[in-house]
Amino acid sequence: MAFTNITIDKQANIYFEGNVTSRKITFADGSTKTLGIMLPGQYEFSTNLREEMAITAGTLRYQLAGEEWQTIDGSGVFYVPANSTFSLDVQTVTDYCCSYLTDDN
Amino acid sequence: MAFTNITIDKQANIYFEGNVTSRKITFADGSTKTLGIMLPGQYEFSTNLREEMAITAGTLRYQLAGEEWQTIDGSGVFYVPANSTFSLDVQTVTDYCCSYLTDDN
Repeated sequence: MAFTNITIDKQANIYFEGNVTSRKITFADGSTKTLGIMLPGQYEFSTNLREEMAITAGTLRYQLAGEEWQTIDGSGVFYVPANSTFSLDVQTVTDYCCSYLTDDN
Repeated sequence: MAFTNITIDKQANIYFEGNVTSRKITFADGSTKTLGIMLPGQYEFSTNLREEMAITAGTLRYQLAGEEWQTIDGSGVFYVPANSTFSLDVQTVTDYCCSYLTDDN
């Protein structure tokens, strides 16, 4: 599985002292995703746009604001509302693809 | 700085329990690079092709086979021969771009 005809920023995004890192890719239609790695740990993130978090590999728990903890083991997808927060409890090295969604997608 | 019109593998390469991770990008001419992150630690790598290691951010020391340790602080480039090994002593989170070189480049 690969993404084609994209632009990638050479510089990584580095969070939590490098325990979470990602790289932004931009598609021909202007839409963006980040491909990232999370090492084991607890993290809280906030969103601007609605996000699709697709886990490619890894075991983790996630909690959306006001909801119960859920578990992903190996692969899975969850959606985070715009202007919200979510918590992660990452248990093994996790490979992910985050899509930033607009009204169009 | 960005790379355009490329293909990126969705799945990351994960080494040293996630302390070194990278993603492969392929250009229209078939040439490849990896964009990666290294967390602090000591690592040894081996090459097949000749490699250009361009450090975008980070502080580290590197040692090519049979040579003295050298220091990169912030950014820098070094080249590793084909079919060789090199050692890294990474001191801060390091963002890098590795180009796999052939006789053509």
